[in-house]
Amino acid sequence: MTARLLVISASTRPTSAGRPLAQWLAERATGHAKFETTLVDLGELALPFFDEPGLPADGGYVHQHTKDWSSTVSAADAFLFVLPMYNGGFTAPLKNAVDFLYAEWQGKPVGLVSYSAGTSGGAPALAMLHPVLTRVGLRPAPCTLSVPAITELVGSAGEFRAPAHLAASADTVLDSVGDLLAAPVAA
Amino acid sequence: MTARLLVISASTRPTSAGRPLAQWLAERATGHAKFETTLVDLGELALPFFDEPGLPADGGYVHQHTKDWSSTVSAADAFLFVLPMYNGGFTAPLKNAVDFLYAEWQGKPVGLVSYSAGTSGGAPALAMLHPVLTRVGLRPAPCTLSVPAITELVGSAGEFRAPAHLAASADTVLDSVGDLLAAPVAA
Repeated sequence: MTARLLVISASTRPTSAGRPLAQWLAERATGHAKFETTLVDLGELALPFFDEPGLPADGGYVHQHTKDWSSTVSAADAFLFVLPMYNGGFTAPLKNAVDFLYAEWQGKPVGLVSYSAGTSGGAPALAMLHPVLTRVGLRPAPCTLSVPAITELVGSAGEFRAPAHLAASADTVLDSVGDLLAAPVAA
Repeated sequence: MTARLLVISASTRPTSAGRPLAQWLAERATGHAKFETTLVDLGELALPFFDEPGLPADGGYVHQHTKDWSSTVSAADAFLFVLPMYNGGFTAPLKNAVDFLYAEWQGKPVGLVSYSAGTSGGAPALAMLHPVLTRVGLRPAPCTLSVPAITELVGSAGEFRAPAHLAASADTVLDSVGDLLAAPVAA
């Protein structure tokens, strides 16, 4: 059976350079034997800030937007988070999207790709995100990808112009997610 | 001259137990000789997710909500962030409110108070927040306060029932912010 991969593009900026990267990664994952891929853009998803009266770990959501997001995340076997770094950390929309749910994430692998206009590629944001992911029971794939100088890699038509080494790195991350899917989880 | 302290209540949940804590801290800071205090509730502020086309470090905001938030933060000499912990980290609304601006934070002291329903008091969220604060040029006060079992401290009328030791701890944090205000910043 083909595993269902949900690619989450974590920027909500109208001028995001990460959206082309996320689209390219989603296409790459579709070409990858292991995955049937869906891309969700957190800007288009347009969740409000967390507004459930109860705790996500208790379930019992009252808002339709929460129930819809729960359905989307429940339908996935694994995730690929594609995130910019703001001020040394992950972005608010991504944290918010994670915080809305709980059981829906449990035990599922997540691949991590960060990017930045500068030289770090946003790697510190991945490090900061790690304890959040494990708190909700996600299993971060050991191979991550951080892309520096992202704005240099987006063409005037908004297309992602991937250098060859990035394609190989993206496949490595996708393989890493696939390996986790195949690995048994201790009960 | 009395320093202007902006207390930022970082939860947007309708049932937040942190709002009474933030209100109590704002009152305490007003009673404190050093501060003229304003309380802003991020739930009421209702910023959207970051949506400026440009980078905050470049200024040149296009949205009225950004200009308003810029005015509010510019008017403050120091801050007190009152934040819950979600999944081991700070909340999305707080990160978003920080990420919207840049120059407005530079060089100003910030006191940190976290809380949780559990036993940690949300202290890990403060640790996670630290590099974000320094990235935008805020000066975190060395004394922080983390309040465990927050739901046990809120009465049925939504009032914060502070044990005596918390009052002393809150004053220590406020003093710590005041000390930073008085300390010279290297040019």
